[in-house]
Amino acid sequence: MNFHVLTLFPEMISQGLQTSILGRALERGTIRLSAVNIRDYTTNKHKKVDDYPYGGGAGMLMQAQPVYDAWKAVSEQIRREKVGSGNVRVIYVTPQGKTFHQAMAKELAMEEDLIFLCGHYEGIDERVVEEIATDLVSIGDYVLTGGELPVMVMIDAISRMVPGVLGNEESGRNESFGNYLLEYPQYTRPEIWHEKKVPEILLSGDHKKVDDWRLEESLARTRKVRPELYEKWAEENQEYFIRKAKKEARARKKEAKRMRSGNE
Amino acid sequence: MNFHVLTLFPEMISQGLQTSILGRALERGTIRLSAVNIRDYTTNKHKKVDDYPYGGGAGMLMQAQPVYDAWKAVSEQIRREKVGSGNVRVIYVTPQGKTFHQAMAKELAMEEDLIFLCGHYEGIDERVVEEIATDLVSIGDYVLTGGELPVMVMIDAISRMVPGVLGNEESGRNESFGNYLLEYPQYTRPEIWHEKKVPEILLSGDHKKVDDWRLEESLARTRKVRPELYEKWAEENQEYFIRKAKKEARARKKEAKRMRSGNE
Repeated sequence: MNFHVLTLFPEMISQGLQTSILGRALERGTIRLSAVNIRDYTTNKHKKVDDYPYGGGAGMLMQAQPVYDAWKAVSEQIRREKVGSGNVRVIYVTPQGKTFHQAMAKELAMEEDLIFLCGHYEGIDERVVEEIATDLVSIGDYVLTGGELPVMVMIDAISRMVPGVLGNEESGRNESFGNYLLEYPQYTRPEIWHEKKVPEILLSGDHKKVDDWRLEESLARTRKVRPELYEKWAEENQEYFIRKAKKEARARKKEAKRMRSGNE
Repeated sequence: MNFHVLTLFPEMISQGLQTSILGRALERGTIRLSAVNIRDYTTNKHKKVDDYPYGGGAGMLMQAQPVYDAWKAVSEQIRREKVGSGNVRVIYVTPQGKTFHQAMAKELAMEEDLIFLCGHYEGIDERVVEEIATDLVSIGDYVLTGGELPVMVMIDAISRMVPGVLGNEESGRNESFGNYLLEYPQYTRPEIWHEKKVPEILLSGDHKKVDDWRLEESLARTRKVRPELYEKWAEENQEYFIRKAKKEARARKKEAKRMRSGNE
């Protein structure tokens, strides 16, 4: 998978994704990353890329020309390398976009190439956004000084979904948001730390019991912190509640029987 | 404002925030950033900081000891420098947290010190999180390979709210999420680009008209992309709709009068 990032701060992008899992995936070539400096494409002799907004207001806007020409150069290069390839999606990261989420990361991971456009200053001239961007995406309801960090966040989330980026071990994991539920608490050695013991059940070796406990913990945590996600899960997992109710009914029956035989 | 980041990848944090607005704020000392390597605090002779999860499952977990000791060292240092200072908030960035948003950025910007804890691998032993973290925060509903990028995102959003980080010009701006609304489209020179003209009204010099147009554009965009935010705004701005209805009623009255006088 190839990520192409149009930015005014290419060094931020190329430095920021070199560590740990992504760094190894880049080394192996499972993912590739190229940061393109928009400033290299300005036709302004002072290398200027921004100007004041029409209609007044504070701050500066990135102009259409350098953004468009940087995009054109990258698109043409992709097309030269892959004859017959279709149009590459261009993702503009902006608070005005749809909110990024895990399902979107999975979907984008199926593309062969993705172009990301990082805004800076007060944003980008609307006309070039209209002309080149295929997706407007926001990583959350907060304002940042530029598009570089959110683009790195998206590349990280998408890369994890690209086959071969996570090891087999890592990728098999049950993760937050995959099924709406937040993850259960995890514990590692030592067994006792600061007088706190690891929950007994995790040491039992009974996988069924461990799984049940983890699901209950996930449910309790999700219900408390993110009730709206809990509701979604509950809607799609009615059979869990039926199973639970039946189990409880069986336990009550058993108990009643025990009581009766005790009375006899 | 002082940001202290507990991480296994300190270079990622110190490199990633050096550009543009944040870089200048760091240079001026308006904000300060220190990245503390958790690995420096492990008592393991092989410098190991992780181990397998109890109860099975893929991946490794960060152990309690090095995380706790790194936190303790930073807390004590802050206390030494500021006699009488209270406890410093410790923010653990995790998908299991509350979702970060602009109001939270504003609130956190009022702290003098903040400690951030970056998880890696499959997470951190729950016991140390329980013991030291005061806030569990998620930047969105997606999974990342580590806590460093989301911590940088939070530091960026919070820093913008620290007085003196944005220039006067920048900080006066009407921004996305400040009032639930997404921002209006912006345009800069040239007036005509790729045969697309800047909306006439922005060239009119009539500030009242420009403001009205921008509000209408913000409303239309928010309603389309983020209907739930639009509803929140509408709830809190009933008088806008009343004013609009009155204006329309006046226009209808005027038109009716004009028609009548035309008929006479």
